[in-house]
Amino acid sequence: MAMTLPAEFSLIARHFAPLAAPGSLGLTDDAAVLTPPPGRELVLAADAMVAGVHFLLDDPAETIGRKLLRSNLSDLAAMGATPLAYLLTVGLPRGTPDAWIAAFAAGLALDQQEFGLGVLGGDTVSTPGPIHLSLTILGHVAPGTALTRGGARPGDEIWVSGSIGDGYLGLAVLQGRLPMDAYLADRYRLPQPRLALGLGLVGLARAAMDVSDGLLQDLGHLCRASGCTARIEAAAVPLSAPATALVAADVSLRQKLITGGDDYELLFAAPPEAGSAIEARALEAGVAVTRIGRFAAGEPAVVVVDAAGVERPAGPGGWSHF
Amino acid sequence: MAMTLPAEFSLIARHFAPLAAPGSLGLTDDAAVLTPPPGRELVLAADAMVAGVHFLLDDPAETIGRKLLRSNLSDLAAMGATPLAYLLTVGLPRGTPDAWIAAFAAGLALDQQEFGLGVLGGDTVSTPGPIHLSLTILGHVAPGTALTRGGARPGDEIWVSGSIGDGYLGLAVLQGRLPMDAYLADRYRLPQPRLALGLGLVGLARAAMDVSDGLLQDLGHLCRASGCTARIEAAAVPLSAPATALVAADVSLRQKLITGGDDYELLFAAPPEAGSAIEARALEAGVAVTRIGRFAAGEPAVVVVDAAGVERPAGPGGWSHF
Repeated sequence: MAMTLPAEFSLIARHFAPLAAPGSLGLTDDAAVLTPPPGRELVLAADAMVAGVHFLLDDPAETIGRKLLRSNLSDLAAMGATPLAYLLTVGLPRGTPDAWIAAFAAGLALDQQEFGLGVLGGDTVSTPGPIHLSLTILGHVAPGTALTRGGARPGDEIWVSGSIGDGYLGLAVLQGRLPMDAYLADRYRLPQPRLALGLGLVGLARAAMDVSDGLLQDLGHLCRASGCTARIEAAAVPLSAPATALVAADVSLRQKLITGGDDYELLFAAPPEAGSAIEARALEAGVAVTRIGRFAAGEPAVVVVDAAGVERPAGPGGWSHF
Repeated sequence: MAMTLPAEFSLIARHFAPLAAPGSLGLTDDAAVLTPPPGRELVLAADAMVAGVHFLLDDPAETIGRKLLRSNLSDLAAMGATPLAYLLTVGLPRGTPDAWIAAFAAGLALDQQEFGLGVLGGDTVSTPGPIHLSLTILGHVAPGTALTRGGARPGDEIWVSGSIGDGYLGLAVLQGRLPMDAYLADRYRLPQPRLALGLGLVGLARAAMDVSDGLLQDLGHLCRASGCTARIEAAAVPLSAPATALVAADVSLRQKLITGGDDYELLFAAPPEAGSAIEARALEAGVAVTRIGRFAAGEPAVVVVDAAGVERPAGPGGWSHF
């Protein structure tokens, strides 16, 4: 862990040392040394988050690092990978209180235990800007089994895990635009990476990704990578009980839920004959899965069939303006 | 490469796609898939850099990414590792011009070719703060051969590569505090990772690290990790010709050169009998190496012997205030 930082930040090393993974050399050397799991391929992803952009300035320190870690774990889940370790760089404004850093590290410690991984290295820097975090995650898969975005074929069913739109609503709750709802707030701050489901989908799903930028936009990525048209039923998109109640009161919300971000659910394609096996794996993983539509031959495009049966194309590049 | 970014930044994907390493899945999937080099250990490090803190706001876009990549390559050099690939997250202010991003990527492309590695993945985000970059690098070593900080023993000689203090002087030049000098400016903006030398030191050096936070501070880290006292001769610290001329004009500069940062030279310890082999390896690597002192039994501490032969202890925690 390179320490190009003012003296006040050397305490970060104290807070992070208990998080160190095997091979991290106690986070005190130039780099970590890792023996890759024998006979496995590595899966790697990196994400950054900025205060005021990807999380709220007044989010609790305990959840901020966990949200970033979980968004990366969600990328591993989408590839059908098992978590191994991570590296983290932390940019903090000068004068960040010791208690904030302790809480930030304590949150990460909880998730490390829950998801079975540790920190291999990183860097702490001061910034005149807002809190800025960047995390690189490593996972592993059996060779050739990683789920990717490009394998969907016409006739495949389109599935999602869990419920869609809670992250969008949770943000609105935390910004005071909707009444307080602890479930929705928690879904925004602490997404649930679907790791067990992702592992269960290996050999069953033909394509997969995680929904982080909104269901329609991300489904558009699957269409482009696979060269298919996707047709989904808006009414089939699974909503949580709090989301269902809010849509009942304001039906215009439904389209916001399928374009909003921060879901961190899995979106995947599988042939119809795999359906019962997928439901069995989801049951084992303790996650609901729902068919929301089907891929068809055609140009990469997403078509949404609304509650009245009217087809509404979501044009290329315009997913987020549906 | 997760793309949680405003539409204006999707062009980054275009600029970065040509940089993609094998296994990166064209930077369009949730994560990259990498087959680790068989029979090797992985070496991993991460560093962040912030505009106005680690580089100058008006540094050319071409050199900014390269400086970060080279500082990470320097960490690999210090471990005796061979570069493999990297992941990069880029935080940019809204409205960053396309030309800036193109130049940034073009600089990285040059260094990827020079150092033989490609980008596996990453993320691009917008930030209300200054440009904020984070890079995770992967390298590899033969099992058990990574150089670390903890192996120095009493009697070992202390060596550095290249010249010390040029980064400090280059910053002063670019800030207008010293007359323009292209060599020194270049040393600040484009450090030279000593990869070939690092490889050559495997089996010869007992401990190594790179000098990024200033020679005295980093030597203090070696002392603590190895449990030894270091004694160095200030006059033995190698200076470049421009640095020598500046010290001749202002002798007080000498101590600033050994406490300033951004050297990215290798600092290492080796038994005296390894000296001629080290000089041979350095010759092959095309890098000068210089003995600057010796480790002794005793508490972790750095003692500087000045030109008059007076010993000046650099106290614990106070390296940067020597």
